[in-house]
Formats: sequence, structure tokens, C-alpha cells
Amino acid sequence: MISKTYTKYIQSLHEKKFRDIENAFIAEGSKVVMDFLTSSKIVCERLLATADWLKENEQQIRKYPHVQLEVIEDFELDKISALSTPNKVLGVFKKIIDEPINPKGTITLVLDTIQDPGNLGTIIRIADWFGIQAIICSENSADRYNPKVVQSTMGSLARVELIYTNLADWLLKNKDIKIFATALDGVGLHSIKGLKEAIIIIGNESKGISAEILELANEKLTIPKVGGAESLNAAVATGIILSHII
Amino acid sequence: MISKTYTKYIQSLHEKKFRDIENAFIAEGSKVVMDFLTSSKIVCERLLATADWLKENEQQIRKYPHVQLEVIEDFELDKISALSTPNKVLGVFKKIIDEPINPKGTITLVLDTIQDPGNLGTIIRIADWFGIQAIICSENSADRYNPKVVQSTMGSLARVELIYTNLADWLLKNKDIKIFATALDGVGLHSIKGLKEAIIIIGNESKGISAEILELANEKLTIPKVGGAESLNAAVATGIILSHII
Repeated sequence: MISKTYTKYIQSLHEKKFRDIENAFIAEGSKVVMDFLTSSKIVCERLLATADWLKENEQQIRKYPHVQLEVIEDFELDKISALSTPNKVLGVFKKIIDEPINPKGTITLVLDTIQDPGNLGTIIRIADWFGIQAIICSENSADRYNPKVVQSTMGSLARVELIYTNLADWLLKNKDIKIFATALDGVGLHSIKGLKEAIIIIGNESKGISAEILELANEKLTIPKVGGAESLNAAVATGIILSHII
Repeated sequence: MISKTYTKYIQSLHEKKFRDIENAFIAEGSKVVMDFLTSSKIVCERLLATADWLKENEQQIRKYPHVQLEVIEDFELDKISALSTPNKVLGVFKKIIDEPINPKGTITLVLDTIQDPGNLGTIIRIADWFGIQAIICSENSADRYNPKVVQSTMGSLARVELIYTNLADWLLKNKDIKIFATALDGVGLHSIKGLKEAIIIIGNESKGISAEILELANEKLTIPKVGGAESLNAAVATGIILSHII
């Protein structure tokens, strides 16, 4: 049984404004919650789960005696969940304390105004798959603590650093590293392989990369097209590019 | 002004059951509606648009004098739209009449139980980008006329054939073509290039490819992993695989 106050508190975390005030966010479902519990970078404030789920995961949960546990009924989960089909467990976590990012000697992703939360989450998951350690986001990108972002990262949020900053300033500070921009009129990405150090810019879902940012790139990269589609989804394009250059 | 009956008719098309009965589906937004209007494969039953949109697109629309046009108010669009933010125009279209599929000499995608409409739509768009002409779906895959599928194809639905059928039977009929299955324990896909004829099987979002179908494959393909993510989104994996083998 959760109090009315705590129910309202969790509901408020569905919105960015309150996540910023409270410095907290929610994550749902066994896979994501477990990945966060085992991460040394993420602190769990409270875990709310159905009796069923707790029974199934009793042994795992015992490893985290510091976690405050609460058994809830399905109707209570319905109230606090951000999912259309709530999934047995919801964790309230403190926001991640980011480590400073050093793009030297690695591949870094730069996202210029990725606005769809599902796309951002999928890109974080792709970055994690390809061993990318950091993503630099423009300030108007989707919030990484948006419940839809958290769910679509499938736990990868705990393994990839994200920084929200002014992209032009950040790129100028790192101009000794080669900067690639994804575009429809660049060189075919089959010509680039085995990159060890680079910055890769991915643009907005409909507008692409803004002119100001595009100007700072050293080279434009294109995914060769055979058929009729005008463009590819931003996350799909990110996956294809990383799979070729790494 | 649309009648109550036609409003109810369009609302019923949000559901598969009624799309099957009426042999029709809806599509929304300028880009998708225009791609369908210009396609010789799709017949428009009625176009419902705001006065604004019609004014902007008057010249284009004049090219299709047979299309039945209806000017509607925003509140009417809200009622019939399947989008959370309705987008000026909604078309009611008759279902596509499929041409017979011949996988000889081409790359064909086979989808084993892709259930998320957004994933299916994105896969259709990727297939279109890479010039794939046909996708074979298991009977329990998401419906290609689901409004979320239609929207995420971004018009590609008009350019890629889809067939829903028993996958095992279809694969057995085409066993003279090499069948690749995507899996976590196959050969790295960097070793395969420039395929001209193949069948590529993509599995369900969480369960992968079913055992029965996996058995029919000649080779397993894997996207090499560097980092910590357990898996990739099904659409992203499809994009990466096609970009390497074609």
C-alpha cells in the first residue's frame, strides 16, 4: 500500500520539470530495474513491486538490503506507471552522476535535436552495443530520464554517459578530433572502416543536422540508398553507421 | 462536415477486424497521404483535410480529380485521427492488391512474429531504402494496415510487397534459395557481402526466431557486439544486416 503523497510524487516524475526538481526518475519492468539495481552508477530510492514479482525475484533482491521495498497491488501500479501495460515492478532512482567525458581515442556520438524519446532510447541502446561510452546531446534533445527513453534503452542508460550541452561550443573545443556528419550527400560509408577516434553527428528526425553544426564537420557520411524511401529512421541510421565504421 | 456514420466508419478502421471487413485503412499527414495518392497500387476512397491543407496543396490535389474530397474542421479531424497530434489530412484507402512474390534473384525479408507496429513500419521503410521488394510475415505479425505501421513506413508501404503466410511452408517451398537467420551465435556479418539472392529471417523482439523456423535456415548471421547491451532493436538489426550484405 503506498501513500497518496508518494503516489503523487511518482506521478510527478512522469514530467521533466519535476524530475529536475526531485533529481529522480522512474524505470519499469524486470529487465530495466535489475540492470539499474546492479549498476554502481545508479542509486535506488524505492522499489515498488507486486507480491508475485517479489516472490520470483526474492534471491536477487536480497543482494540489495539497502533498497527500500514496498509491495503493491496491480491497481496501485496502474496509477503510478507510465506504461500502457504496467509490468510488475517500478523503481524510483536518483539521477546518474555523470563522469567527465574525454572523447580522445574513442568514438563519440553527437545528437543534434533528437526529439523522439523512443529514438533517443534506441540510440543509447545501440551505442551500448557498439561500446560507445559517451553521447553529447543538444540542449533541446529529448530528456534521457523521460520514461519512454528509459524503457527503450533496455538498461543501457546505466552504461552510456550522456551530456546535454551547446553542441557548437563542444565541437569547437574538440576540433582536433575528426568530425563526421551524417548527410544525404556525403561519401558512402563503406569507404570508412576501423575508426578508433571520431565524433559522429546524427541529426534531427525530420530536419537533419542544423547548418551551424554541419559547418563544423570535417566530412559528410552517407548510407548508400538502393530503393525508394526518402530517409531512414535516425536510430536505424545510427546503428548502420556505427556497424560500418567501428 | 462529415456525417456521424462516416465518422464511425473511420473510427472502426482503427481496428484490424473492421479493416478486414471493409477492405480499407487510413493514413495521415501530408507525406504519407501524398505518397499513397501518387502510387498506382493504392486506391483512395476519400480524402478528409482541413481548409488550410487544401489551400497549400491545391495544385497537387488537382492532379487526382477522381479523389473524393471533404473539407473538415480540426475538431472533426481529432475525432477520426489515430494520432495523438492529428496532422491536417487523413485519407481512407482501399487495401493494396498484392502482386505474386518471386524470391528468385532478389533479397527477401522474412519476419517471424514482429509484433510492435512501430518496428514493422520501420522495417518496411528500411526494406524500401535498400530496394527490397517483398517481405514475408508470419501470420501473427503486426498488421501492415495498423495506423502505427502505416505512419512509421513514411509512405514505403506503397513500394514494398507484404505477404502474411505460414513461414515454414513458405521457406520449404523456397529452399533452393540460401536462407540466413539472424542470431546471437552466428558468423559475423562482415564476412558476407554483395549478396544478390537470399532470404533473411528476422525474429521476434524478445524471443528471437522460433526453433521450427531457425531449423530451416542454412546459416546464422550475427552483428558483432563490442559493449554491454544484451540485444538490438529488431528494426535496427534489420537495417544493419541489409546495409552489410547488399
